[in-house]
Amino acid sequence: MAQFNAVVGDLRGNLERMHDLWQQATRDCADLILFPELAICGYPPEDLLFRRQFLRDTHQALEQLARSCDKKTMIVGFPQLSNGRIYNAAAVIKEGKVEAVYRKGRLPNFAVFDESRYFKPGDRPLVIDIAGYRTAITICFDIWDIGWLATTLGPMQPLDLICNISASPFDIGKFGRRQAVISRAASHFACPVAYCNLVGGQDELVFDGRSLVAGPDGHLVTIAKAFEQDLLMAEITKDPSGRLEARSIGPPAAMVDETILEVYLALVLGTRDFLTKNRFTKALVGVSGGIDSAVTLAIAAAAIGAGNVLAVTMPSRFNSPQTIADATQVAQNIGARCLSIPIDPVLDAFHRQLSLVEDWDDRGTAYENLQARIRGTILMSLSNKLNALVLTTGNKSEVSTGYCTLYGDTAGGFAVLKDVPKTMVYELAALINRQAGRPVIPQTTITRPPSAELRLGQRDTDTLPPYPILDQIISQYVEQDLSAQQIIASGLPAEMVKKAIRMIDHSEYKRRQSPPGVRITTKAFGKDRRLPITNHYDPCGQ
Amino acid sequence: MAQFNAVVGDLRGNLERMHDLWQQATRDCADLILFPELAICGYPPEDLLFRRQFLRDTHQALEQLARSCDKKTMIVGFPQLSNGRIYNAAAVIKEGKVEAVYRKGRLPNFAVFDESRYFKPGDRPLVIDIAGYRTAITICFDIWDIGWLATTLGPMQPLDLICNISASPFDIGKFGRRQAVISRAASHFACPVAYCNLVGGQDELVFDGRSLVAGPDGHLVTIAKAFEQDLLMAEITKDPSGRLEARSIGPPAAMVDETILEVYLALVLGTRDFLTKNRFTKALVGVSGGIDSAVTLAIAAAAIGAGNVLAVTMPSRFNSPQTIADATQVAQNIGARCLSIPIDPVLDAFHRQLSLVEDWDDRGTAYENLQARIRGTILMSLSNKLNALVLTTGNKSEVSTGYCTLYGDTAGGFAVLKDVPKTMVYELAALINRQAGRPVIPQTTITRPPSAELRLGQRDTDTLPPYPILDQIISQYVEQDLSAQQIIASGLPAEMVKKAIRMIDHSEYKRRQSPPGVRITTKAFGKDRRLPITNHYDPCGQ
Repeated sequence: MAQFNAVVGDLRGNLERMHDLWQQATRDCADLILFPELAICGYPPEDLLFRRQFLRDTHQALEQLARSCDKKTMIVGFPQLSNGRIYNAAAVIKEGKVEAVYRKGRLPNFAVFDESRYFKPGDRPLVIDIAGYRTAITICFDIWDIGWLATTLGPMQPLDLICNISASPFDIGKFGRRQAVISRAASHFACPVAYCNLVGGQDELVFDGRSLVAGPDGHLVTIAKAFEQDLLMAEITKDPSGRLEARSIGPPAAMVDETILEVYLALVLGTRDFLTKNRFTKALVGVSGGIDSAVTLAIAAAAIGAGNVLAVTMPSRFNSPQTIADATQVAQNIGARCLSIPIDPVLDAFHRQLSLVEDWDDRGTAYENLQARIRGTILMSLSNKLNALVLTTGNKSEVSTGYCTLYGDTAGGFAVLKDVPKTMVYELAALINRQAGRPVIPQTTITRPPSAELRLGQRDTDTLPPYPILDQIISQYVEQDLSAQQIIASGLPAEMVKKAIRMIDHSEYKRRQSPPGVRITTKAFGKDRRLPITNHYDPCGQ
Repeated sequence: MAQFNAVVGDLRGNLERMHDLWQQATRDCADLILFPELAICGYPPEDLLFRRQFLRDTHQALEQLARSCDKKTMIVGFPQLSNGRIYNAAAVIKEGKVEAVYRKGRLPNFAVFDESRYFKPGDRPLVIDIAGYRTAITICFDIWDIGWLATTLGPMQPLDLICNISASPFDIGKFGRRQAVISRAASHFACPVAYCNLVGGQDELVFDGRSLVAGPDGHLVTIAKAFEQDLLMAEITKDPSGRLEARSIGPPAAMVDETILEVYLALVLGTRDFLTKNRFTKALVGVSGGIDSAVTLAIAAAAIGAGNVLAVTMPSRFNSPQTIADATQVAQNIGARCLSIPIDPVLDAFHRQLSLVEDWDDRGTAYENLQARIRGTILMSLSNKLNALVLTTGNKSEVSTGYCTLYGDTAGGFAVLKDVPKTMVYELAALINRQAGRPVIPQTTITRPPSAELRLGQRDTDTLPPYPILDQIISQYVEQDLSAQQIIASGLPAEMVKKAIRMIDHSEYKRRQSPPGVRITTKAFGKDRRLPITNHYDPCGQ
C-alpha cells in the first residue's frame, strides 16, 4: 500500500513519486502495489475533470507510468474517459500494461463529495488473479455500503483478497468508523482487506493515510503511519486447506489514539501542504497576545519551521500592555521573528478622512471593524511585499457566529483554526505546551478572559455565550443540523441558543468570503455546508 | 401559471403570495393554477433541506395553504420528506386537500445544480384529471430529457395537457433553448404544455420567469413577462373529435429579444433582490470615473432608486482630474448623492507605519494593492455606519484574470458585473445611455483607455491582453472548458492565450473570497465552476 501525497494536477510529479514507490516495493518483492484513489491526478480534481485535455493528459500519464513499471502488478486510481463518460476508475497494470479497469460503483455525493457531478457509476465487479489469489478491486465508498458490496461481490466468491483504494479525508472519529467498515467487509467475505488511503492536505481536506490490512476475521493486521507518507507491506497466504491469513511485514506504525493529537497533526499537515503546494515558503501571522493567534503561530512553526514564520503585532490604544507583552513573548518562545507595527496613526488618519462624512464617529461596530481592517491591510501589504502567506487565526466559534471582521481578521490565505471550536483551541494550547515541556504559550494567554480589544474593557462574553455553551450549540446546530427546540431540550439555555443560532444564520455572507481552512469535524464550513446567503427561514420561529 | 418571486426560507411570505395569486386566478375562473418548483420554500434551499425542522415546517405550510385555498386545483412545488428520503415534489391540491404528489424523476446535478445531494428521484408518472382533461405533472429538468419523458409518459397517452413547474435560471441563450425543449415535448405528445417558471434573484441566480404555453403542435401560444411577476392565463379546449387547442387569455407579454437588454434586466433584478431580500434599503458604490463603476451605479439606481444609492469617490494623487470629474459627473447624471474622501493622508500614514519594516517601499504591487484596500476599508466603514450594502464593480474579465485586489476593490456584499465581460460592460453603457436618451455615462468614461490608476500612467493593457481578445479567451477557457491548444487554433495569439490562462488558473484563491454576483453566462464563477485552489495542472504544459 503506497500511501503517498499526491498533488492535484501534478501529473508529472505524481508519476515520479509513484515510480519511486514501485521501485521500492518491487525491491522488497511485493507482488501487488496499491496506490490511492485518483492517484495519478490527485483528489479531488473537481471541475478539472470537465476539461478534455486534462483527461487526455491523465490517460497519457497513466500509460507512461505503466510503461516505466514493467514488473509485478499495480492498482492505480485514475479518471477514465470512455464514450464521453467519466468514471472514477482503477487501472490494473500488470508487467507494464494496463490489463483491466475497474470503475467505482458507489459514488458519494454528500458532505464534501460531489462525485455524481463528474462520474457515472460502474456496473460490474472486477476480480483479478494475483499470484494465484482471487483479488477483488474496490474504490473508497464501495466498501462503505456493505449491502451493495455483498450483492456485487457475492457471486464472485470465494475471494482471497479485497483491495480498496481510497481518498478518505480525516475528521474526528473517522478512523474508528473507517476501521469498522473495513473489518466488516473482511468478516463478511472471510478474506483479508488491503486498504490504501491517500495522505496529505488539499485545500480544506486533510487525508490522514493510516492505510491498513484487516485479516479474514476482521481484525487489524497492520497499519501505516498517520498523517505521513508510508509504504505498508503485508503478506497474504493460503494454506492447502484454503485457510487465508494476513501477516504484517515489519512492525505496524504507532497508533494515534488521542483526539487532540490527531487534530494537531491534521492542522500541521493541512497547513504545511496548503503552503508548500501553493509554493509559499513563508507565512505571516498577526499575533494579538490571545490564544488563537498563539496556537496558529505554533502550528505554522511546526508546519514549515519557526524560521519561516513571521509574527506581526499591531497594537492600538485599546490593547493592554499585558497582551502586547504576551504577543511578543509567544513569538519569542516559538522562535519566530516578531515585528511590531502600531496602528494608531493609521486609525487616526482614517478617522479624520471619514469625518468628512457627517454620520461618522469613533464609536460602535464601524470603528471597531476599522481597526481590524487596518490590521488586515497591514498583513496583506507585508504578504505582497515579502511573498509570505497570511494565516488567519479565527476559530470555529467565531467563524460560526460571525464574531470577526470581514477583510479584517478574516483577511488571509488559509484559516488554520477555522473548524476548531474555541474550547478545543485551549486543548491544543495545552498539548503544545505539554509536547514542548515548557509554557510555549504563556499561562496568562491561556487564563485571560478572551477579548477582541477593539474598545476599552471589551470581553467576548459581551456578545457571545460563554464558549463551553456556545461550542455545544455549534456542535448541535452546525454539525448535527438539530433544531433550536432540540438544542434547548438538551438542556442549554433557551435565550443563548436562539441568539447564537440567529448569529450563525446571519453570518453566512462572511463565511462565503473567508479563506479555506482544515476540516477536522464531521461538518466544516465550506464545501461541507452549503447554505444560501439570502435566507428568510427563521429556525427559532416555529 | 402563477409566476411569482418566492423567497428562500420565507414560508409565511410565500404562502401569502400564493394565496393572493390563487384568489386572483380563481376570481378569473381558472380551473388549474400552477406555482413554480419548490414554491413553498423558494429555490434553491440548499442545505436547509438537511434540517428536519425545516422540512416539517414546509409540510405544515403546504397543509395550511391547502386549507386556505379550497376551490379548484393547484400544483405546488415543495420538498417532500417520506420514509427518511427527500423528494423534489409537486402537490396536487384539489378543493383544499392534497390529493396526490408527483416526485421529480430527473435530478440535475451539474452546473449550479446539486439536486442529487438532497433528493431521491421519483419513479412514477402522475396523470390527474382536471375538468375532464388528462393532465400530466412534470418538474423542471424532467422535460429537458425527452428520452426519459417519452419512456415515462408514453404509456400514459393520450394526454390532454403536460404541466411543468420550474425554477429555471437565466443565462444568455437560455430562453431559446428552453422554448425549444418545451415545444419538442408538446409536439412529441401532441398536446399543450403549460410551463410555469420562477422569477426573482436568489444569491447568484436570477430566474427570468417567461412562463409560457405551447400548443399541441409546439408553437408558442402565450408568454408571461420577463424578469417580473406575472399571472399568465390560457385556455385549453378539446373538440368532440378530440382535437386539442390552447388559446391565450389576454395579450402575451412583450418579448425581450435583445441580449444586452436581457442581461441588463437580469442584473437589475438580481441586484434589487439581493439587496431587498437581505433587508438592505441602501447601496454604496465606489466610483472611479471608469466605466465599470459607472454602469454598476446606474444598475443600482435602476434596482432601488437613485435616492437610495450613495456614490463615493476616493481620489489619490494617481487619479487624473478628468477621471475624478467623470466620477462626480456620472453620480450627478444618475441622481445619486456623491461623497468624496481623498485617500492620500491614509496612504501616507500606512506608508510611514509600514516603513518600520525594512523591505517596505512605495513601489510595486504591494503599494498599489494598499491603495485599493484603503478604498475597500473606507467603503466598508461607511457600510457599517450607514447600514448600506457595498456593491463591487469588478467585471468578469478582471475577476477571471485576478486583475483586482482582494479586500480592496473586491470588498463588498454583491458583485453586480462579476459575470459580465468588459466588452459587454461597454454594451451596457450604450444601452443605459440609449434608454435615458442622454449620455448618463459620460462619453469620456466610455472612450478613455481603461486604467486602475494605482500608479502614474498605468493602463490595463500593461498587464492584460486587449479586452476584445481577452474576452474571447475567457469565453473559450472558462465557459467552454477548451484547451490552450484549441483556443490558439481558433486564431488567438498564442502568447496572450497562455498568459491569460495562467492568470485565470492562478487567481482561483481570489475568486474564492469574492462576493457573489449575478450569473448571466452558461458558466459563472461560484457554484457553477468548482476548481481547486491548490492545483499544479499546467493547461499550457502538454
